[in-house]
Amino acid sequence: MDQGNPHDYLDQHQDRALADLTELVTIPSIAAQSDHADDVARAARWVADRLTRAGLDGVRLLPTALHPAVYGEWLRAPGKPTVLIYGHFDVMPPGPTHLWTSPPFAPEVRNGRLYGRGATDDKGNMLIPILATEALLQTIGALPLNVKFLFEGQEEMGSPYMGAFVAAQRDLLACDLAINADSGQQSEEQPIQLLSTRGICGLEFALRGPGADVHSGQHGGAIQNPLHAIAELIASFHDASGRIAVAGFYDDVLELSADERAAMQTPDWDEAAERAKIGITAFFGEPGYTPRERTTIRPTLEINGLWGGYTGEGPMTVIPREARAKISCRLVANQDPQRVLDCVIAHIGAHTPPGVVAEISPFANLARAYHLPSEHPANALVGDLLEELYGRNPLPMRTGGSVPILAFFHEHLGVHSVGFGFGLPDEGIHGPDEFFRLSSFARGQHAYLRLLDRLAAWQPGADGA
Amino acid sequence: MDQGNPHDYLDQHQDRALADLTELVTIPSIAAQSDHADDVARAARWVADRLTRAGLDGVRLLPTALHPAVYGEWLRAPGKPTVLIYGHFDVMPPGPTHLWTSPPFAPEVRNGRLYGRGATDDKGNMLIPILATEALLQTIGALPLNVKFLFEGQEEMGSPYMGAFVAAQRDLLACDLAINADSGQQSEEQPIQLLSTRGICGLEFALRGPGADVHSGQHGGAIQNPLHAIAELIASFHDASGRIAVAGFYDDVLELSADERAAMQTPDWDEAAERAKIGITAFFGEPGYTPRERTTIRPTLEINGLWGGYTGEGPMTVIPREARAKISCRLVANQDPQRVLDCVIAHIGAHTPPGVVAEISPFANLARAYHLPSEHPANALVGDLLEELYGRNPLPMRTGGSVPILAFFHEHLGVHSVGFGFGLPDEGIHGPDEFFRLSSFARGQHAYLRLLDRLAAWQPGADGA
Repeated sequence: MDQGNPHDYLDQHQDRALADLTELVTIPSIAAQSDHADDVARAARWVADRLTRAGLDGVRLLPTALHPAVYGEWLRAPGKPTVLIYGHFDVMPPGPTHLWTSPPFAPEVRNGRLYGRGATDDKGNMLIPILATEALLQTIGALPLNVKFLFEGQEEMGSPYMGAFVAAQRDLLACDLAINADSGQQSEEQPIQLLSTRGICGLEFALRGPGADVHSGQHGGAIQNPLHAIAELIASFHDASGRIAVAGFYDDVLELSADERAAMQTPDWDEAAERAKIGITAFFGEPGYTPRERTTIRPTLEINGLWGGYTGEGPMTVIPREARAKISCRLVANQDPQRVLDCVIAHIGAHTPPGVVAEISPFANLARAYHLPSEHPANALVGDLLEELYGRNPLPMRTGGSVPILAFFHEHLGVHSVGFGFGLPDEGIHGPDEFFRLSSFARGQHAYLRLLDRLAAWQPGADGA
Repeated sequence: MDQGNPHDYLDQHQDRALADLTELVTIPSIAAQSDHADDVARAARWVADRLTRAGLDGVRLLPTALHPAVYGEWLRAPGKPTVLIYGHFDVMPPGPTHLWTSPPFAPEVRNGRLYGRGATDDKGNMLIPILATEALLQTIGALPLNVKFLFEGQEEMGSPYMGAFVAAQRDLLACDLAINADSGQQSEEQPIQLLSTRGICGLEFALRGPGADVHSGQHGGAIQNPLHAIAELIASFHDASGRIAVAGFYDDVLELSADERAAMQTPDWDEAAERAKIGITAFFGEPGYTPRERTTIRPTLEINGLWGGYTGEGPMTVIPREARAKISCRLVANQDPQRVLDCVIAHIGAHTPPGVVAEISPFANLARAYHLPSEHPANALVGDLLEELYGRNPLPMRTGGSVPILAFFHEHLGVHSVGFGFGLPDEGIHGPDEFFRLSSFARGQHAYLRLLDRLAAWQPGADGA
């Protein structure tokens, strides 16, 4: 055992760290596409091997109803807290590859950034704590506290089978606190503290009309056109202002206090710059809430796909036998995903126009919103550390996205999760030319060394966590 | 010259007639698909050759802005009327070929029917007058009146460039009456007289939101979703009852008198049987009109295609940058297609929800409705002939479909058109397993002999046509 300094160890091994990340990004572990299931499994084995090489114990692949998860542990610090570090090795589909400067699964370094699908979300960020752990084990020979790692391969699908998995593995995963490495900061200068993620539920539905596609000259005007019917139904989901008009949808929504809402205001938020970034002329949504509030503390109902009839070139006079749409809802505290789904299903039933029949297929990814109470002691601990690292107070942050497993950890393990990741908002997450800054990659590894030290001194029982 | 009987000649040549039709149906002359443009041209040459072999004069291909038309004439009957016989040699796309019992362009005779795309619409029906003309020229050596033939290759696209063509060729096409061979009867026992076809216009439009597809978790709720916007816009085209809510849309619609509407009633119309045939549970549409009226004497606005966002398997949380739809309107007398298109475009402008921008691309196929006045003398002439041929009074019939050139003949040549065709409604027009009854094919040829004789005795000037 080289009794060196783990920070020096990290500095000396950045080339190898980049080689590791490059290898992992090369695997097209697209969770949603069944013809990539083998790649997801290959990524799982790669992660397990890397955990073993880092010096962790009990490394294993654990089956779920879909892609395997990876577990590893180091539990040789009796009397010390146990943390569960989480990340995911699956990725989003790359989308149209012609929009990528270099191929999505042939990672390439340009200007100090590694480009490739999953570079920042979440392969780079999930490697960081593994590398920090390795540095400790290879220098000091021990970690300052007990660590469990859990990496999953279905996060980008909404973790449909991770709730059941966490419930079934509650003893194995038992801990004092979870650390979410699928997280980030606001900029290279400004840290954040992630206080909440939204939940999710969704469905696909069809409206069926005539028994087959029919000629719109022969039958148009005398029968319900499924495309008209689905437009009418979709229009009924919101009022003209953008507020959701589904009965019961807002029933359980936790309204934040004026103080909590005031604390969310980001004084340097520049509406014109944000509009330009998204490419829109105006924000639009539920009255009484700012754009930031609408995407974080308010639930949504969004159509993500809509189709029917002839979509080729030129005219064709057809009335299609059916029209289809996909819906997702983002949920906030204290909404129950199944209850919201039931409200949406009831709305479809009540608002299906005459002359068509609805057929509904709910999606499996049901997740509650997750909220870390601001008074939770881990918040202060991580906040102090971020302030030291960045020289600035972290901003409290709520995200509009979902990390479904955080709610499962809370529900089944009884623990909260703090975000500790180093992705930045401009890194093309889910889009083309996704990248991760190599400076963030290194900074994160050093930061994790300090986080683990800080957490080792924490006494969860004593301060009421 | 064999001075035989032309009816005998037809009877002796049915095998060759079937061989001709088989050859023509083998050519995949799909007007709408640019990779079949050569096939449309090949079909045009085939028709021109067949006209020449039949003994017609001045046979030629005439260019249009798209596919060529075919012309031929026999004008050696001075003092006799001149009729213009019309049909089309282009066909609809075959649709999914696995739904066909035999391949759509490998015609096959089964049970006295020739199966193949275009067998009845309109290749079989357009060959009938050519074969009858040939029988006269090969037996008697003359026609009883002057005949011009015009066959086009873009009818199934809505004849977008035939209006300009007819206007430019008004001298060549000058006549006393047009005969529309793109027509049919109600059944083998019941003849009809086609009194009107509807006009058409249409457009495709996009609603554009964010500059690129964005994550519905990050931005959902704060920006206008183009899929919500297009649903709202499409829902605004009709009121809840199904009546069109576009300002000015009904302005020029000719309201039929109570007598005219009463004459349209088909006493044996069986609503339950019609519903079962279409596969719907209920008819739906503009209040105050029967299903038959809604598809014939009332205009429509139908969405024929609608799409945007993710349409693959499973969930994907995207807000697409745009949503698109295709619209077609069927028009009745006295609507002007450009004026209706302008109303629809104005409606889109006025009803585009906030946060998206509309981009509109009108289609080129603009056609007025066509109406043959019931008092037109050709109506009585053809009606009497059909009664003799079928032993039953023909039913007056309006169709919901469009034969755009009929309005162009009326506008540019100043003549009306009578339908004289032998397709039947059960022959799979535009669908799989299209066929033509060989009995209808032969019956039509004999009927045309009698029609030409009857028309030869007609004096258009004398009875005010």
